[in-house]
Amino acid sequence: MIRVAVAGAAGRMGEAVVAAVEGADDLRLTGRADPSLGTTLADVLGDADVVVDFTQPDTALENALACVAAGVHVVIGTTGFDVEPLREIGPRPPANVFIAPNFAISAVLMMRFAAEASRHMAKAEIIELHHDRKLDAPSGTAARTAELMQGDVPIHSVRLPGLVAHQEVILGDVGQTLTIRQDSLTRESFMPGVLLAVRRVGELDSSPVIGLEHLLF
Amino acid sequence: MIRVAVAGAAGRMGEAVVAAVEGADDLRLTGRADPSLGTTLADVLGDADVVVDFTQPDTALENALACVAAGVHVVIGTTGFDVEPLREIGPRPPANVFIAPNFAISAVLMMRFAAEASRHMAKAEIIELHHDRKLDAPSGTAARTAELMQGDVPIHSVRLPGLVAHQEVILGDVGQTLTIRQDSLTRESFMPGVLLAVRRVGELDSSPVIGLEHLLF
Amino acid sequence: MIRVAVAGAAGRMGEAVVAAVEGADDLRLTGRADPSLGTTLADVLGDADVVVDFTQPDTALENALACVAAGVHVVIGTTGFDVEPLREIGPRPPANVFIAPNFAISAVLMMRFAAEASRHMAKAEIIELHHDRKLDAPSGTAARTAELMQGDVPIHSVRLPGLVAHQEVILGDVGQTLTIRQDSLTRESFMPGVLLAVRRVGELDSSPVIGLEHLLF
Amino acid sequence: MIRVAVAGAAGRMGEAVVAAVEGADDLRLTGRADPSLGTTLADVLGDADVVVDFTQPDTALENALACVAAGVHVVIGTTGFDVEPLREIGPRPPANVFIAPNFAISAVLMMRFAAEASRHMAKAEIIELHHDRKLDAPSGTAARTAELMQGDVPIHSVRLPGLVAHQEVILGDVGQTLTIRQDSLTRESFMPGVLLAVRRVGELDSSPVIGLEHLLF
Repeated sequence: MIRVAVAGAAGRMGEAVVAAVEGADDLRLTGRADPSLGTTLADVLGDADVVVDFTQPDTALENALACVAAGVHVVIGTTGFDVEPLREIGPRPPANVFIAPNFAISAVLMMRFAAEASRHMAKAEIIELHHDRKLDAPSGTAARTAELMQGDVPIHSVRLPGLVAHQEVILGDVGQTLTIRQDSLTRESFMPGVLLAVRRVGELDSSPVIGLEHLLF
Repeated sequence: MIRVAVAGAAGRMGEAVVAAVEGADDLRLTGRADPSLGTTLADVLGDADVVVDFTQPDTALENALACVAAGVHVVIGTTGFDVEPLREIGPRPPANVFIAPNFAISAVLMMRFAAEASRHMAKAEIIELHHDRKLDAPSGTAARTAELMQGDVPIHSVRLPGLVAHQEVILGDVGQTLTIRQDSLTRESFMPGVLLAVRRVGELDSSPVIGLEHLLF
Repeated sequence: MIRVAVAGAAGRMGEAVVAAVEGADDLRLTGRADPSLGTTLADVLGDADVVVDFTQPDTALENALACVAAGVHVVIGTTGFDVEPLREIGPRPPANVFIAPNFAISAVLMMRFAAEASRHMAKAEIIELHHDRKLDAPSGTAARTAELMQGDVPIHSVRLPGLVAHQEVILGDVGQTLTIRQDSLTRESFMPGVLLAVRRVGELDSSPVIGLEHLLF
Repeated sequence: MIRVAVAGAAGRMGEAVVAAVEGADDLRLTGRADPSLGTTLADVLGDADVVVDFTQPDTALENALACVAAGVHVVIGTTGFDVEPLREIGPRPPANVFIAPNFAISAVLMMRFAAEASRHMAKAEIIELHHDRKLDAPSGTAARTAELMQGDVPIHSVRLPGLVAHQEVILGDVGQTLTIRQDSLTRESFMPGVLLAVRRVGELDSSPVIGLEHLLF
């Protein structure tokens, strides 16, 4: 039984993590830290084997350092903070840090397969499709996919009401195409990836590890 | 039994029409006109009820006028010529003229459905995908589809080896999308439309009729 | 300004209708009837031009008759009740009844286009895809689509986690395919159709009218 | 410059190989063996570094043994023969044998990715789509894909005019799906895989090697 506390437990992602941990037979929820609940990380650290952090860029690093110092592993979904200080802890810290910019397993598989296929197919294009309230383009996942692929891969962004979050990588060669499509339809799409990280963060060979792909391949 | 002659019979489209007519139980091939066969339209006109013309822009009009004058209906797949003189023949000519820029029935259905759906869905985008030897963009079908639709519909063009000729119209509204996709995989995709026109050109209420949609709806 | 009351206002669909009416500039929410709110239809009927009913099969008919008797138009999304008594009111009742088994505009368009395309394409198949908690197969929409299409159209049902509600109609003919795909991703997908019915129920030429298609084509 | 002879050079696949070899800068076509051309393997063996065999099940084995005995590598696309005698030549033969049941690189990538994704996603289904002249079902590629995947993966077969050869593997998990689709549109789709094998057969570490995946990963 792995004891799990959630930092940022009252946020949208935090609430989904709380529900997912409560729904897993091999995990036990031992604490919820959130300013709006009147609780701090310090309050929940003592009872946890792993902390899951979905807070803010300016809190995540401090939280991670506190977890490691207390010998508690930490899984971080917060993005946009400087991870350098976490590298400086050294390769054998008292506890491990796992960070992922994207916890959707299917998205990570798509990126990996697109990268691999691009080495064997002549040419490719990425089409990413999102709801029309998403103002930025291209999506981070599309940009990252293109980076991982061989060759110059154009990205086209579609914004329409009714869409959620989708990406299609089309690869072509003589007489054939290969299309890899990923659809994320709900926030819960991140949960299998978060739970995988919670179960595996204690066994990492080094720390920090960045990217869900390191747990999949 | 409808007697059919083909003008431009040695071209790629003409050859496909010859094969399709020969394969149809209710049609009989009575002539093949083509400079490279040493035959002219005049040679084949006498034995035909219908002429199918896949020639050149500068020949098609002259051919059509000769057919009508001889009382032979004509189905024209040649594009890029001025149809105005055909309108001036008057509404009740001795024979009918049918012209279509696109004989792929599925493409014509796609355009019609996209136009209709755009009146009921909030927003749309067209993605057309062709082999990378197609240098122009957007495709004529995509441009025509956008014209027929309501609202401002962006078109994105994908060019990749392995593709043939495909188009996707994605329409979105609250919580839902509707996607209409058309794939043309071989030149034969035009044949059901050509044969439909051959069978119906004799019964048209007016002449010239331009567009396969007039035979479908 | 159309005054709208919702019957079954505390149910999942009722709550979504309440939110959609409140979000529409030309509609005003004047009442919410639901046993769990301690309110009845009689309480809200006086202030409404239109009642939207998402209740239970054994309540919907009674509600509809009460609405019509009070001169209030009614839009019914409840399914599974006998509509015959509504036909017997006569063609010119004091108020109109509109019923739809499916308020997703994109689904209704898909069914219509599939029916029309099946008259021009050689053969077709329907693939409907739903989340794996949906136990019945095929879906009602797929069965209805097949009924409307010409020819014998097989239906295949896919049930997988991560899916919501999707349907693809693939039509094939010589060298070409036409695919019509509909995706419903959230309950809100029904709202544009419900609001369309609310705005149009007062102008119907006859009553009852059954099916959103009568408001679209 | 690799010197290449083709056995079965007058067959449909053989002709495509001849054209592909002639179109490649680093390959030289040195012979075409085919009963209908009045030439035998013995006629072309002397001038070749590699023989490509697209013949018949009862010829392929004999051809392969003759090639190896003559110190000429052989790439075999013929299927349905017993490969056991080729294993008995021993691990260090005078020349190498490479055999592939499927030379479409995109199909091999699809199978590999589907196998890998099935280890990380909850459930999957395969839909394979072929022209309606294909009488058997499921396709060999679909059956092989299912074998390679983890879990019990249902296969559905669609047969429609207008389709060529397509396969979709849909994998689902909480809130997300991953779809891997492969489309083979022309016989030429096999050529990049055949040429890859021609270029690599001389460097194999062991022989025979069966399956294009061994050249890709």
